[in-house]
Amino acid sequence: MMSSKRITQAFVDRAEALTPQLHKARVYPKRQVEIVANEQAFQGWEVKDAGTAEAFNAGTLRQGDSVVLDFGDHQVGYVTFSIRNVDSNADAPLRLGLVFGEMPCEIGEDFANYDGWLSRSWLQDEIINVDVLPGTVTLPRRYTFRYMKITVLATSIRYHVTFPELYCETVTSADEENVVPLPGDVPDDLRELDRVGIKTLRDCMQTVFEDGPKRDRRLWIGDLRLQALVNYETFRSNDLVKRCLYLFAGMRLEDGQVGACLYEKPHPFVDDIYLYDYSLFFIATLYDYYAATQDRQSLLELWPIAVEQAEIALKRLDERGIVRDDDTWYCFLDWHDDLNKQAGAQAALIYNLKRGLLLARELGDSAAETFMQTACRQATAAAMAHLWDEERQFFVSGEGRQVSWASQIWMALAAVLDNAETAALLDRLMRENPAIGMSTPYLYHHFVEALLECGEREKALAQMRAYWGEMLADGADTFWELYNPADKRLSPYGSNLVNSYCHAWSCTPSYFIRKYFIDREGKYTG
Amino acid sequence: MMSSKRITQAFVDRAEALTPQLHKARVYPKRQVEIVANEQAFQGWEVKDAGTAEAFNAGTLRQGDSVVLDFGDHQVGYVTFSIRNVDSNADAPLRLGLVFGEMPCEIGEDFANYDGWLSRSWLQDEIINVDVLPGTVTLPRRYTFRYMKITVLATSIRYHVTFPELYCETVTSADEENVVPLPGDVPDDLRELDRVGIKTLRDCMQTVFEDGPKRDRRLWIGDLRLQALVNYETFRSNDLVKRCLYLFAGMRLEDGQVGACLYEKPHPFVDDIYLYDYSLFFIATLYDYYAATQDRQSLLELWPIAVEQAEIALKRLDERGIVRDDDTWYCFLDWHDDLNKQAGAQAALIYNLKRGLLLARELGDSAAETFMQTACRQATAAAMAHLWDEERQFFVSGEGRQVSWASQIWMALAAVLDNAETAALLDRLMRENPAIGMSTPYLYHHFVEALLECGEREKALAQMRAYWGEMLADGADTFWELYNPADKRLSPYGSNLVNSYCHAWSCTPSYFIRKYFIDREGKYTG
Repeated sequence: MMSSKRITQAFVDRAEALTPQLHKARVYPKRQVEIVANEQAFQGWEVKDAGTAEAFNAGTLRQGDSVVLDFGDHQVGYVTFSIRNVDSNADAPLRLGLVFGEMPCEIGEDFANYDGWLSRSWLQDEIINVDVLPGTVTLPRRYTFRYMKITVLATSIRYHVTFPELYCETVTSADEENVVPLPGDVPDDLRELDRVGIKTLRDCMQTVFEDGPKRDRRLWIGDLRLQALVNYETFRSNDLVKRCLYLFAGMRLEDGQVGACLYEKPHPFVDDIYLYDYSLFFIATLYDYYAATQDRQSLLELWPIAVEQAEIALKRLDERGIVRDDDTWYCFLDWHDDLNKQAGAQAALIYNLKRGLLLARELGDSAAETFMQTACRQATAAAMAHLWDEERQFFVSGEGRQVSWASQIWMALAAVLDNAETAALLDRLMRENPAIGMSTPYLYHHFVEALLECGEREKALAQMRAYWGEMLADGADTFWELYNPADKRLSPYGSNLVNSYCHAWSCTPSYFIRKYFIDREGKYTG
Repeated sequence: MMSSKRITQAFVDRAEALTPQLHKARVYPKRQVEIVANEQAFQGWEVKDAGTAEAFNAGTLRQGDSVVLDFGDHQVGYVTFSIRNVDSNADAPLRLGLVFGEMPCEIGEDFANYDGWLSRSWLQDEIINVDVLPGTVTLPRRYTFRYMKITVLATSIRYHVTFPELYCETVTSADEENVVPLPGDVPDDLRELDRVGIKTLRDCMQTVFEDGPKRDRRLWIGDLRLQALVNYETFRSNDLVKRCLYLFAGMRLEDGQVGACLYEKPHPFVDDIYLYDYSLFFIATLYDYYAATQDRQSLLELWPIAVEQAEIALKRLDERGIVRDDDTWYCFLDWHDDLNKQAGAQAALIYNLKRGLLLARELGDSAAETFMQTACRQATAAAMAHLWDEERQFFVSGEGRQVSWASQIWMALAAVLDNAETAALLDRLMRENPAIGMSTPYLYHHFVEALLECGEREKALAQMRAYWGEMLADGADTFWELYNPADKRLSPYGSNLVNSYCHAWSCTPSYFIRKYFIDREGKYTG
């Protein structure tokens, strides 16, 4: 049974009225390739040139033949192809196998052997039967891919086939004309990070900010918050942020929490998942939205829900004022099996309370101001009293007093220490490098943000170059959900085939570059 | 390269204007079944009851589960189902495997092992991915089936599925209200033969008379001729016969021959296949059409093409006046690898010339009358001189002087001998039973027709009961393309999975019963 939800239909209606039109463009394959096993190549798969796209369009495929098309870049959209029978008429249906892959591994590996923990249904492959030839087929599903493999599973002995035209009609709600070009003196590698970050965001921007257009294709508030930050610096689709905020506000969980994620179809609905940090991010996301737009009317409407998220989060504090820990997936922070979430959750609480406080002041809501300020002071004091380990000079988490990167990063973002102390904490973190490290670009983002917020611009740039830059060196067309330079097949899902290779939470290099390294006059300050 | 065709666009346009509307009806599954291997059962597959349809609609399927639905009878149409996720929302697409079978063997056997000679694409199976749940799916292809197997290939760990509604919207251009009920004293077994014959014709009647709605789904003139005969006794969709005649007349082969078969989509076009007997059947089919309708205008328009078919056929005669034999598939008659076609082709020529002669007289076309009469006399005399074996008292065919059922049957239909001699020939045929026997219901039809035409009503009834009746005993919902009571897995295509189990040329018991055993006052005369 699904639990009952708290629905505010007026908010949902407001959100639905803001559903954007999608921009469409036709993209044609750039070449034919072969995907070849090669242990030296990224994830073990090398891409080799195998002919022109024109040769594909002019060529003939027989039963058993296959071809891999390379669209030259990451695409999100709908594929159309025309098919002609050659040699004779099609006296039997045509049966085709189609595979779409963001990455070479999805083409190289046999999906029949997939044994990941997420549903096999995320793998993008189809078998289609075409009854009438010649004809034109538009596949009804949206695919996210750079590579498309076509296998002719069955013709008849009388005919073969050719594909005179094949293209992808891409979709995005992002308007590229809104993106201001970087000044000429931005270094090439940062330009490339910015370009790919924008491309990543663009491909995730549909009728909501999707987390990944391949998987999960839905709106997570953790991703939304970061996408919104990049969006304010690039596409400025501020109404899309507004739509997403109203969707989360309009469909909450049973006890009033903002849900972790929601779906648009068949009608908007919120998932059952509650995550401590994600619900709190409603406050920070609203704060960022208001800072970018000065949309006071929306702030007024959504403010009570933001306050309620703080109230709900505070109920989880124990008698010491510390977030009650447990072993379940109650708080996200990062994909890391061994990460204890207590300190990070406490820091996320403080981080959001601080933004709630600023909003309360902006609105002149003195009751909320008092509430936020008191809660913030108490949570900060409790953190220093119970989570700060004076001897180790780190924040610790859980009964095992775990020292992790995530805990330090979030305490840094929460500014529990002063600026100099925070910079020293992060410096110590890098030097001592505790075992519980960073898994996802999501946590890397927060690390870079923490460095930037305490003024460590050089270190932040170095981290961006070392992490996102390495992704580019490994062939990223868009930034990936998961990336560990030391384990390039890493997946928290048991198979890198289902990793999302265009993922919202990874698009933030464009935000860093544009917010922190371009000044108000548009000059590069790196 | 496809050869150039002789197109008469005005005829094609006339045909297209006669495209019928399809009648639609919703049919729901009747029960769940299990298909179990059992050597005693027809083709080795037994159908066992496995629950009600209601239990299916109310039940839950999990990843890996499958169900086989029995629609209770043969269906041709479009399948729609609603799907609901249960236990939680669908956080990943749903991947379903679907198999449609006219017969239990299609459900019981694994299509992956198919090794027939016709394209594997004729097997009716799909893999579909459903992105949005709950939802309703209407499959875009038309299926021909009684059994539908659903396998849940992938959900996610969070949700399962249920199918609250599933139905087939059947399509046919046949109007059942036109069928006159049989009188009450027709024996039950004949009533059943009639019912199934009509059902077979109905399911083949779409926007043309298809040969088989599963395979090949197109218009063959050999099938059309028999379907038209049944149609005149049942549905009386005479404009559909007219449409088909105009399609064949409007799109002929390079040298003027009427093609063996044609396609409707993407636009009407004729296949390259030429068959000696099939082209000639344009004459007989036109003759039957005029006899049923007295549509003199169409006869006048199509008559020159009929005459041309006779002229083309006569060019194949050698200096003796006998059809030149060869080893290719130049004449159909029956699916039989060892059958020599010469005598049957000669007989089919005479059969059609006789009908051409009658039409020439009807039209007062004395030139054509002379032409037909002369050709007919010469072909008959040549047959008696060179193909009749006085010693064996059979017609022989080819250099090897083969004695086959097909040759005798067609010579009987051509009435080369007088009535008593023909009856004696058929009697001898049954008694001596030459090795080259009958393979298809198509040839069985001609055997029964030959018996009836020479007055052997009891023998004809016995044959119908022994052949089509045995098909019913073996579970036929509609009459099959192929049936050999001695080899029930027989297929000329290397696998009985691709046999058509609802096939036009098998629907003629209804014609025999209604034409030969019901008199003009509607009384049973059996």
